[in-house]
Amino acid sequence: MQPWKTLKTDIEINNRWCRVHKDTVELPSGKVIDDYFVHIRPDVVLVLPVTDEGNAVMVRQYKHGAREILLEFPGGFFDPEDGSAAEAAARELREETGYTCDKLEPLTAVYDNPTKDTNKIYFFLARGARKSHDTEFDTTEEIETVEIPFKDIPQLIREQKIKVTGSVAIYFMAAMAMGI
Amino acid sequence: MQPWKTLKTDIEINNRWCRVHKDTVELPSGKVIDDYFVHIRPDVVLVLPVTDEGNAVMVRQYKHGAREILLEFPGGFFDPEDGSAAEAAARELREETGYTCDKLEPLTAVYDNPTKDTNKIYFFLARGARKSHDTEFDTTEEIETVEIPFKDIPQLIREQKIKVTGSVAIYFMAAMAMGI
Repeated sequence: MQPWKTLKTDIEINNRWCRVHKDTVELPSGKVIDDYFVHIRPDVVLVLPVTDEGNAVMVRQYKHGAREILLEFPGGFFDPEDGSAAEAAARELREETGYTCDKLEPLTAVYDNPTKDTNKIYFFLARGARKSHDTEFDTTEEIETVEIPFKDIPQLIREQKIKVTGSVAIYFMAAMAMGI
Repeated sequence: MQPWKTLKTDIEINNRWCRVHKDTVELPSGKVIDDYFVHIRPDVVLVLPVTDEGNAVMVRQYKHGAREILLEFPGGFFDPEDGSAAEAAARELREETGYTCDKLEPLTAVYDNPTKDTNKIYFFLARGARKSHDTEFDTTEEIETVEIPFKDIPQLIREQKIKVTGSVAIYFMAAMAMGI
């Protein structure tokens, strides 16, 4: 099995919030496709904070792609000034929820949509999370933070009260890391 | 907490493989943002097939967004002729792997990226999967099918040999449904 060759890249949208490329690619069969769209997206971090009392910290927020208010674990895009995924994770956790923790444990790095998007999503477990700061929201953010017993999360997933792929995946990775 | 109001939608790209809208939105605070990009994407199905011998059926394929050959569970976009998510799942399973099953059990429906994308991803468990047909690939598909003991999947996730969010999430949903 071979990767494709990229023969040409046309930049279709080059906005700071949206970058779309149209690639001309040559498949291993020799076939050429002149309209393979790729979405250039910044990497993302997702954090599962757990308090010493055994509560997971989650955020409820309106998401305009889905046009719904959704319950998720905190996270967001890398900022240019973030030196590492762990720095981005600590920053997003603090800004979105006001929680911090002593140490972030990396769980994995995965692709959300490797067919169309370039970005990875870095999962972190934040044990010993506690409310220590005020929140600092971006312009588009209005976020409600909730603590939910970690043991109740599978039921919320089954009931589709948690219905974002990353939040489902990180819960199970965290449970595996915590030996639950 | 309130959803945003969409005041105007400009169509930036309207290709059959890529649809991007630029929305002008009004936030609950009254603030107006005139460049909120939304990617209009078709819904997706993802299937976790398990054979009577306890093997999961996975596919290995080059993905041009990530520019990597990746191991995932079979799936794909809804076709216009698919009457339901279950029909799309049965079709994708048969076309990509040549496997069929007696019954597809819905596990959940989740958003991959509710911030930017409109689509949902429907997870199905296909117990009693067996090779019964020839594969039928799309133009861009070159797919290798592999059977992997279901019990080995968590180790492959830990080792990042499986590194796509949907495939991680569906494994744990399937394990929960199977009482494992």
